[in-house]
Amino acid sequence: MCKNIIVGQSGGPTAVINGSLYGVVSEGLKHPDKIGHVYGMINGIEGFLHGHMMDIGALAATNELELIRTTPGAYLGSCRYKLPEDLSDPVYPQLFRIFEEQEIGYFFYIGGNDSMDTVSKLSRYAAQIESPIRFIGVPKTIDNDLVETDHTPGYGSAAKYVATTVREIATDATVYDNKQSVTIVEIMGRHAGWLAAASILARKYEGDNPVLIYLPEVAFDQEEFIQKVKTALKDTPNLVVCISEGIRDKDRTFICEYSSEVGTDTFGHKMLTGSGKYLENLVKERLGIKVRSIELNVCQRCSCAHLSRVDLDESENAGIYAVLTALSGETGKMINFIRNKSVPYELTYGTADVNLICNQEKTIPLNWITNDGSDISSEFIDYVRPLTQGYVELPTKNGIPLFAYRK
Amino acid sequence: MCKNIIVGQSGGPTAVINGSLYGVVSEGLKHPDKIGHVYGMINGIEGFLHGHMMDIGALAATNELELIRTTPGAYLGSCRYKLPEDLSDPVYPQLFRIFEEQEIGYFFYIGGNDSMDTVSKLSRYAAQIESPIRFIGVPKTIDNDLVETDHTPGYGSAAKYVATTVREIATDATVYDNKQSVTIVEIMGRHAGWLAAASILARKYEGDNPVLIYLPEVAFDQEEFIQKVKTALKDTPNLVVCISEGIRDKDRTFICEYSSEVGTDTFGHKMLTGSGKYLENLVKERLGIKVRSIELNVCQRCSCAHLSRVDLDESENAGIYAVLTALSGETGKMINFIRNKSVPYELTYGTADVNLICNQEKTIPLNWITNDGSDISSEFIDYVRPLTQGYVELPTKNGIPLFAYRK
Repeated sequence: MCKNIIVGQSGGPTAVINGSLYGVVSEGLKHPDKIGHVYGMINGIEGFLHGHMMDIGALAATNELELIRTTPGAYLGSCRYKLPEDLSDPVYPQLFRIFEEQEIGYFFYIGGNDSMDTVSKLSRYAAQIESPIRFIGVPKTIDNDLVETDHTPGYGSAAKYVATTVREIATDATVYDNKQSVTIVEIMGRHAGWLAAASILARKYEGDNPVLIYLPEVAFDQEEFIQKVKTALKDTPNLVVCISEGIRDKDRTFICEYSSEVGTDTFGHKMLTGSGKYLENLVKERLGIKVRSIELNVCQRCSCAHLSRVDLDESENAGIYAVLTALSGETGKMINFIRNKSVPYELTYGTADVNLICNQEKTIPLNWITNDGSDISSEFIDYVRPLTQGYVELPTKNGIPLFAYRK
Repeated sequence: MCKNIIVGQSGGPTAVINGSLYGVVSEGLKHPDKIGHVYGMINGIEGFLHGHMMDIGALAATNELELIRTTPGAYLGSCRYKLPEDLSDPVYPQLFRIFEEQEIGYFFYIGGNDSMDTVSKLSRYAAQIESPIRFIGVPKTIDNDLVETDHTPGYGSAAKYVATTVREIATDATVYDNKQSVTIVEIMGRHAGWLAAASILARKYEGDNPVLIYLPEVAFDQEEFIQKVKTALKDTPNLVVCISEGIRDKDRTFICEYSSEVGTDTFGHKMLTGSGKYLENLVKERLGIKVRSIELNVCQRCSCAHLSRVDLDESENAGIYAVLTALSGETGKMINFIRNKSVPYELTYGTADVNLICNQEKTIPLNWITNDGSDISSEFIDYVRPLTQGYVELPTKNGIPLFAYRK
C-alpha cells in the first residue's frame, strides 16, 4: 500500500542540512511501489500544524532539487517549537488527523536534540494509538553534541569553516608584527566545545596560533588566563586566542554574564556582550596592549565557503538511510554514525533509540583538553580531521554561488 | 648593468595582495641580464629602515613561491608608516644609503593611498638627488578608492566575499519566517561605499534581501531609515539591511559616533560600537522587534573563501606590468587599469602619475545610488560583476587551505 512521506527541518541551520533533505527526497522517489508523494513541511512541525507544506518531490522534475543539495540553511524553513510533554494534549490527535488526511506513512525530521524530542513524542503517541506511521530522526547540528553517534552532519563543514577562518584571522593579525596584539575569536558553542576545539586545525606548527583555546568543559579562571596570555606574548607577539561563547568559571557562571550588567546603549537599555568582548576589555585593562575580539557570525553555521565533501556526503547518506530504515519497518529511531577507524576513515550507518538522544548533550572528553584547559590533544585532531576532508564544487551564477530558495 | 629589486607591501592586507607580489617576483626573475636579486622588505618601508629584508627570489627554487600566489594577507608583512613630508628629513638619505648598499635599481610598493604617497616622496627625492632608482606603485585595496584607475586589485575578491556572505546571512535570517526580524550587516568602508554596494549582488530578484543598502556617499537620516525599515518589513518580514561602517548624517557626523559616548565596560572605560550596533539598538527601541547586527570581520579583506579568478589574475598582472614599466625606464608611476568594455570584459594595463593618486579618494558616483540613498543602480552591477568572476582552486593540506608563511 502506497503512503506519502513528510519531511521537515528544525532548529538552527547548517551548511549541509539540505544535503540530508536531498537524501530523503531522492531516496523517497526511488520506491514508487511503497511511497507516493514526498511532502515537505514549511517551518517544521509548527508550520505543518498550520497546514504549511509543499510537494518537494515534484522538484525532481526541475534542476531545483539538485541545487537544494549544496544550498546552505534550511530550504524548508525551520522552527523552535517544542511539542507538549503531556501526550494527552489535543495537539497530538490534531497532528495525526493531518497525517491521515495527507496519507502520511513516513515522517522524517532533520535536526538536533529538540528535534529528536519531537520524534520521540510522536513515535510514543503513535504507539499509544497503534498508528502504523514510522517516525525517524536525521541528526543535524554544528554543535556535534548528540549522544549515541560518533559525530553529527553539519559539524565537519562548520569545523572546516572555523579552522580556515581562524587561520585567515591569524594571517591578518600578524601583518604588523612589530607591535604586541591579542586577537580573541569567539566561536559558537554554549555547552560543548567541539566547534571551538576545531580551531586547533588552524595551527601550522607547534606553538603557532591559536596558542590558547578555551572550551566550556573546563572551568575558566581569568587570572590564570591573563598569566597565560602574558607568557604566550613573549614567543607570539601577535597572539590569537579562541574561545567557546559558553566558557564558564568554576561556579558555572558564564564569562559573558560578567559583563552583562555593564554596557548601556544610547536608549538606556542593558547591552549584552559576549565572552570575547569581555575578555577583550579585560586584556586591555590588565596588559594595556592592542586587543581585538571577533565574534564569528552566523556564517560558521551556514556558509558554503568551506563545505566538507565528507560531511555533505554523510548528510545525504543519513537522509537516504533514514528512508531505508523506515521502509524496513523501524520507528522511533535516529540515524547514527559508527566510526570503524580513522585512518583510513571508515564509517557505518546505524540507528539508535531516539529516546536515548533527546535532551542529552555530548561534551568533549576531558582527557582531550590539555595544558590546564587551554589546549587540545592530538586525539581530538585525529577525530576531527577526517570530517573536514574534500572539496565541493558549487554551482555559480554571475560569479557567485547559486542557492535554491522557495519561490 | 644588473641591479636588484626591492619589493614591499603596505597598509591593510587583501586576499590577492600576494598575487601582485608573485607577479613582481616571477617577472623580476625573468630578466637576469638586467635584474639580479629580488629582495622583499619585511614589514614595509618601516621594517626596511631597520634592515629587515629577505631574498624572496630565492623561493622560486622551492614550491613556496607558487603557494604565496594564493595566500591571503601580506606575506612580507605590512606597516602603516608615513614618510615625512619634508624631503630634507634625514630618513631619505638613510634610505638611499641602504638602497645603494643593496644595489637596488627598482623599487616596488604594493598598497593603497598611503603607499602611493611613499612612492611619490621617494621618487621625488630620487629626482632631487638624481638617483637612477625607479619607483613604481602597485595598487591594492579592498576599498576600491584609488583615483586614476577603473578599480583596484583586491576589490573583486572582497566584493565577492561580501556578496556571498550577505546571501548566506539572508538565507540564515529567513529560516524562521513566522516572526519579523531585522538583520543589519556592517561592511568595511569608512569614506567610500564600494564594498557595501557589492552586497547588492546577493539579491536574487527585485525586492529580495538586502532590501536596503546605505553608503557613506549619501547623508544618512535615522528617521527616514526607520520609516523605510517599517515599510520594507511589510513585504519582507526577515529584513536584511547592509551598511558601510562609515555612514554619516547631513552634518558629516559618523553614525557610529552617536553611540560612542554610551557604553561603558566592566572596567569603567568607554565602549565604542559600530554603526551596525547603534542601528540595532535604534530599531529595537523604535520597533520592538528582533534585531541582530553582524559586523563582517577581517575576513572580508583577507579570506581565500571566495577568491575571484579575474581579481587574482589582474593582481598578478599588475605586478608583472610594474616590473616591465620599471625596466622601460619609467618612475614615479602607479600601474592602473583601464576598462575598455564590460561585456565582454576587456582591460588594458597602463600607468598614472603617482602624485595624482596619493591622498585622493574615489567615491561611488552619486547617480549610482538610488531610492533616496537606500539602493544601488544597475550601472554599479554592470561595473562590479566582471570583477567577481571565476573560481580559484586552492592547494590544501589535511583538508584545509594551505597558506605560505615566513618561517
